[in-house]
Amino acid sequence: MAAMVCADFNATDSSSTNFAACLIAEESAADLADVAAGLDIFYLLFAGSLVFLMQAGFAMLCAGSVRQKNVKNIMLKNLLDACGGALGFWSIGFAFAYGSSNSETKSFIGGSNFFLSDIGTTIDLAEDLNPGAAYIGFFFQFAFAATAATIVAGTVAERCKMSAYLCYSIFLTGFVYPVVVHSIWAGNGFLSAFNQNPPLGVGVIDFAGSGVVHMTGGATALVAAKILGPRIGRFYDADGIPLPEPKSFPAHSVSLQILGTFILWFGWYGFNPGSTLAIASPTAGAVAGLCAVTTTIAAATGCVTAMFFSTIIEQRKTGEATYDLTMAMNGALSGLVAITAGCSVVAPWAALVIGFVGGLVYYGFSSLLVKLRIDDAVDAVPVHFANGAWGVIAVGLFAEPGRMAAAYTDAAAEHSGWFYEWGQGSADASLLACQVFCVLWVIGWVGATMIPFFFVLNMLGLFRVDPLEEEVGLDISHHKGSAYDLSAPDKDQVEELLARQATAHGKVEAPSAGEDA
Amino acid sequence: MAAMVCADFNATDSSSTNFAACLIAEESAADLADVAAGLDIFYLLFAGSLVFLMQAGFAMLCAGSVRQKNVKNIMLKNLLDACGGALGFWSIGFAFAYGSSNSETKSFIGGSNFFLSDIGTTIDLAEDLNPGAAYIGFFFQFAFAATAATIVAGTVAERCKMSAYLCYSIFLTGFVYPVVVHSIWAGNGFLSAFNQNPPLGVGVIDFAGSGVVHMTGGATALVAAKILGPRIGRFYDADGIPLPEPKSFPAHSVSLQILGTFILWFGWYGFNPGSTLAIASPTAGAVAGLCAVTTTIAAATGCVTAMFFSTIIEQRKTGEATYDLTMAMNGALSGLVAITAGCSVVAPWAALVIGFVGGLVYYGFSSLLVKLRIDDAVDAVPVHFANGAWGVIAVGLFAEPGRMAAAYTDAAAEHSGWFYEWGQGSADASLLACQVFCVLWVIGWVGATMIPFFFVLNMLGLFRVDPLEEEVGLDISHHKGSAYDLSAPDKDQVEELLARQATAHGKVEAPSAGEDA
Amino acid sequence: MAAMVCADFNATDSSSTNFAACLIAEESAADLADVAAGLDIFYLLFAGSLVFLMQAGFAMLCAGSVRQKNVKNIMLKNLLDACGGALGFWSIGFAFAYGSSNSETKSFIGGSNFFLSDIGTTIDLAEDLNPGAAYIGFFFQFAFAATAATIVAGTVAERCKMSAYLCYSIFLTGFVYPVVVHSIWAGNGFLSAFNQNPPLGVGVIDFAGSGVVHMTGGATALVAAKILGPRIGRFYDADGIPLPEPKSFPAHSVSLQILGTFILWFGWYGFNPGSTLAIASPTAGAVAGLCAVTTTIAAATGCVTAMFFSTIIEQRKTGEATYDLTMAMNGALSGLVAITAGCSVVAPWAALVIGFVGGLVYYGFSSLLVKLRIDDAVDAVPVHFANGAWGVIAVGLFAEPGRMAAAYTDAAAEHSGWFYEWGQGSADASLLACQVFCVLWVIGWVGATMIPFFFVLNMLGLFRVDPLEEEVGLDISHHKGSAYDLSAPDKDQVEELLARQATAHGKVEAPSAGEDA
Repeated sequence: MAAMVCADFNATDSSSTNFAACLIAEESAADLADVAAGLDIFYLLFAGSLVFLMQAGFAMLCAGSVRQKNVKNIMLKNLLDACGGALGFWSIGFAFAYGSSNSETKSFIGGSNFFLSDIGTTIDLAEDLNPGAAYIGFFFQFAFAATAATIVAGTVAERCKMSAYLCYSIFLTGFVYPVVVHSIWAGNGFLSAFNQNPPLGVGVIDFAGSGVVHMTGGATALVAAKILGPRIGRFYDADGIPLPEPKSFPAHSVSLQILGTFILWFGWYGFNPGSTLAIASPTAGAVAGLCAVTTTIAAATGCVTAMFFSTIIEQRKTGEATYDLTMAMNGALSGLVAITAGCSVVAPWAALVIGFVGGLVYYGFSSLLVKLRIDDAVDAVPVHFANGAWGVIAVGLFAEPGRMAAAYTDAAAEHSGWFYEWGQGSADASLLACQVFCVLWVIGWVGATMIPFFFVLNMLGLFRVDPLEEEVGLDISHHKGSAYDLSAPDKDQVEELLARQATAHGKVEAPSAGEDA
Repeated sequence: MAAMVCADFNATDSSSTNFAACLIAEESAADLADVAAGLDIFYLLFAGSLVFLMQAGFAMLCAGSVRQKNVKNIMLKNLLDACGGALGFWSIGFAFAYGSSNSETKSFIGGSNFFLSDIGTTIDLAEDLNPGAAYIGFFFQFAFAATAATIVAGTVAERCKMSAYLCYSIFLTGFVYPVVVHSIWAGNGFLSAFNQNPPLGVGVIDFAGSGVVHMTGGATALVAAKILGPRIGRFYDADGIPLPEPKSFPAHSVSLQILGTFILWFGWYGFNPGSTLAIASPTAGAVAGLCAVTTTIAAATGCVTAMFFSTIIEQRKTGEATYDLTMAMNGALSGLVAITAGCSVVAPWAALVIGFVGGLVYYGFSSLLVKLRIDDAVDAVPVHFANGAWGVIAVGLFAEPGRMAAAYTDAAAEHSGWFYEWGQGSADASLLACQVFCVLWVIGWVGATMIPFFFVLNMLGLFRVDPLEEEVGLDISHHKGSAYDLSAPDKDQVEELLARQATAHGKVEAPSAGEDA
Repeated sequence: MAAMVCADFNATDSSSTNFAACLIAEESAADLADVAAGLDIFYLLFAGSLVFLMQAGFAMLCAGSVRQKNVKNIMLKNLLDACGGALGFWSIGFAFAYGSSNSETKSFIGGSNFFLSDIGTTIDLAEDLNPGAAYIGFFFQFAFAATAATIVAGTVAERCKMSAYLCYSIFLTGFVYPVVVHSIWAGNGFLSAFNQNPPLGVGVIDFAGSGVVHMTGGATALVAAKILGPRIGRFYDADGIPLPEPKSFPAHSVSLQILGTFILWFGWYGFNPGSTLAIASPTAGAVAGLCAVTTTIAAATGCVTAMFFSTIIEQRKTGEATYDLTMAMNGALSGLVAITAGCSVVAPWAALVIGFVGGLVYYGFSSLLVKLRIDDAVDAVPVHFANGAWGVIAVGLFAEPGRMAAAYTDAAAEHSGWFYEWGQGSADASLLACQVFCVLWVIGWVGATMIPFFFVLNMLGLFRVDPLEEEVGLDISHHKGSAYDLSAPDKDQVEELLARQATAHGKVEAPSAGEDA
């Protein structure tokens, strides 16, 4: 915004008319700051709302993917995620993530603004003080936290206790996830690219959270799935002997899966472009526009790649060309997860490469999990963990100097993606090193906190439901019955009505017989 | 916006350069006004679209809640709501609500701008004349009117005639609801906080419509349910003798219910923050940001409260811990309804309290209706009526002076919530009195208009469907058959195809036999 | 934006204080340009996202409309549409549509910016150079292209080969559709109203694409349906003899249809108002506001008209009043399609007329197709083709001079809708002629390209699936099985669990027996 100098101006030149002209300009600039502030708040309201709607996307995708007997259970978990995320992140998570992040010394965790208590009610834009900006910033970040939590729900579906779910989702959104956020996104995080003195001169570039959100959620899901064990009958028979071929449980509703996929893709237009956190500046606009394009291209490429790759593999085996919707959906989501870290710093063609590799990473990691007999009910680990990691590393390869300068700083742009450095004959792998370290850090931190957590939970018998309850399904055992009742009306009555309508006389016309109409 | 004084300026100082500088500043300010006007129109387009999408949320929630035999019927009603709301509110409702609302004398009802005929095509921002602002204002308000109408649909589902539904939804959106809007939101409404001389110096604070929208819809639903009577078999047996225990009809699809809940929650981010009606000012931005946060916290708290309260009660009775999705969903919606009035004037911690009480109010009022044998097919009355009333009253308790000043006026802030007045040692209950009066006024007005209306409709036999039609379900009797046809393909043909695929020779390859491929 | 003259200013008056004042004003204006640029990018991100979500709407509407055995197939086609549209439009389609559209000579097709390669990374607003604006423009246009492609999917559902679908959707989004876009929307298109020298002094007014998008998609669907032939059993028996009465195949889920309809309506608030392409100007705001209103009114009127018209016709035949949801849904969509061309240039009352006629056009064209034994599985041809054409022509009748001046240019406004010209005693039918020519051009172009294309595809046996596969359904034959598995859990196990819960002792409490919990 225009620097305000009328006071100085007045001091040197007391001509009243010049001073008046200056004041008009000053007032105009102040008005502009008002408009810009409102615009940025609106932008985050829009983006945060779209990210919030991703909860519906996850709920539909997960519900569609499980068997009919566990639909209510998984959807309740998704709903409680959003609620727990809101309360946990409001009370402590946001404070741990961003509290006192303006301090210059690096810190492991934030420590102020619990319950948003630091946000006042005074508006003073001259002091850059608008509580609305602080509130909407929290809203946007809450939606991300809820996303991280909900990623886990699908993986452990059909066998995880409700109480265990509540425990870990609070632990995740209240502590584990905020620490990751603080390290990578807060101004004084130890890996943060927003740090005044970032590691290796650049820090970790994870624009919208391939690592921060998706890997954190996905790594938690992986740990949970390993400790929880597979669903009954998935890899082992009743005697615990491995089945010759793992049994696939059919999705109960592909319609819900596809609906969820589209809603998630839609929500990603808040997730990625919204991560500029502002729009009232030319660079923010340039970055947001790029993000929309790279997000689209990576999603499309991931979808096509995963599906056709699977078609080709299957056709070689069976001779029949089948088109697998699960591959298409999870391929699209894989492309979306993979582009999330680099959406603002890579060229559209690189988004194509990232999505393409993302589709293959999904296919490969999904097959690997089956081989390892780790049971992921919705394949969230290949989508969010594996492609989260790929997305973070891809930034270290494809980040373009010019785009890094726009999305981050000119200083950061001096350490760009390895392919660019290589192209310039440089040996600078600083960014790539930061990105690889980011992957290791997220794995290490989540492992260090979540492995003991789930281990203890499991030891105490609080993690997994009773086998009979699992067989019967959680809807009947814990939620008062099935999610669906499609029973048709009594046939005799239907026939009676149809006969009546056919004669068209039996039907008592409303005005002439008010009592029974 | 900067006051424009170049003409005066020129008069006193004809130095051409000063005048030129002033003109540049003036032009810049005019350009800023243009941008701000566009921004505000965009804001209401965004918010109104989200509120419109709530129609989909209600449709899914209601459809999921009813039995399979009435799905088409309830969804058609939801669709026609949106259409009837558009046509009724465009033709007369908007005129009654806001027509000539700039007049200084208080009025009971507006009386101009029927069919939006007052909106011209001339754009003159210097005169604050932008037809786009007027149009988008209507659009936003239409979406609210449609919401009020659609609340009723769920309560009277499974037994209300289509013709009755059309009659009352036009009556509601065209007359009953606009009068409430006029009284509380129009500049010359007799209870309006926007009045130059509001009652008790403050007027009713119902920011986004806990009272105006939700109570009005919910009260109509209550009256309708009472007069219409319960569904066959819900509280009475075939001989009209009360059942020892009321019979619960199972929801036909919990998936649709949860989808609807998420969509509604999402839509509320247009409903509440959007009610600032503008965003291009620092106070509007501050208020909108706060609204997003309070809305989130109240929804989360309401959900958790209602569900766990019901779990505890149930566990005491049966010894089994069950988690009830209906409680969770309606709890979230109750929190949302309850915070709607005060979202802009209460602190986040108060949103927690409002949501908590909202969850309990829902549980209690829902149980009360069952005791009174009033049959609400989707529990819309506890959610919208009871929590609408609670939300309005809560403002009288929790409204904070500083936030009232931002969202309303400094004058209004002199009469803040009773807990704050009490804390300051004041006995000023002006705001609380206004809020209580608002509740009574809505109940009184809706009762005075809707009770006779439904009574006559019922007397004429136009309200309730024929009992046989009710038993068979409205889909077969009025909408050409069931909403679902999940019949599988012929088994013999499936086996033939599978056999053919297995041999992989029987299948005629496309290129060599074009006719049948 | 304010013209910048400080340099000149300084040349004539070197008084430092005046120059300083000018610089402040200049800086302020530059800042304003920044904010406005960001705002416009945000606007297209919002609108494009909503249009993208229409993919979900089409998927739900189409999936709901088909039989249970083809649900996966149609939804996969809808998902691949979005992906193919992204890749095809990015690589070549966008270049054909808008490449080098600033050139002054008219051209048939664009020829630069393949793979968005013309978009640099430099931001220089003084030169009006913001890559974000270029990127987001592509994003918005991609969403439209994907819409055009997906319209076809529904019509040819249940019998079209996947490979054929992929071929034509790439051909459509990569070539056929971009040529139409270029001709009507590009600055150097030969029919374009944005042309410096438009045909008949006005050019074709198709604001958001009744013709460009909907007719193009709908005409393709019509051609495809004719060549592909009807589904087995729809119009002919097994021996190819026409059935006395065509057989209607029941929609498998009306819930999904209604959900899809609401999502589409919602998405239209991006489609129509978003077509201003900017919002940071008073005229853009005025136009966008109007668009929201006309869109709403036309949709509502179309819905009500089609449904009640069908009710009246049916009641005359059968004596029973039924309310047909398909009519209501497709009526709403017909109103939306019909208003798309003129949403920015007609008055709200004209939107009512356009929607009313749209509802009737739908009913009539749908009946006509059945008489012609052309099988449209979701009635996309009456909705998109017939009402697309009606919408284009309606502009030639109802376009109002004042609104045309705001949405287009003062020059264009000299040739307004025929009813206005008539009212002014003028015989000027220039606009109407342009509009009629537009309809003929779209039909001619699509016919000239698509008829040979589908003909060859059909000759090669690549278009239609094997009859047995069609009978069995495409889900089992190509997508590994049915979209739904609603099988309930084993009854014995359910009873065992209920018995256990009833005794409340058999259940092993978690803490005391960790192994099986």
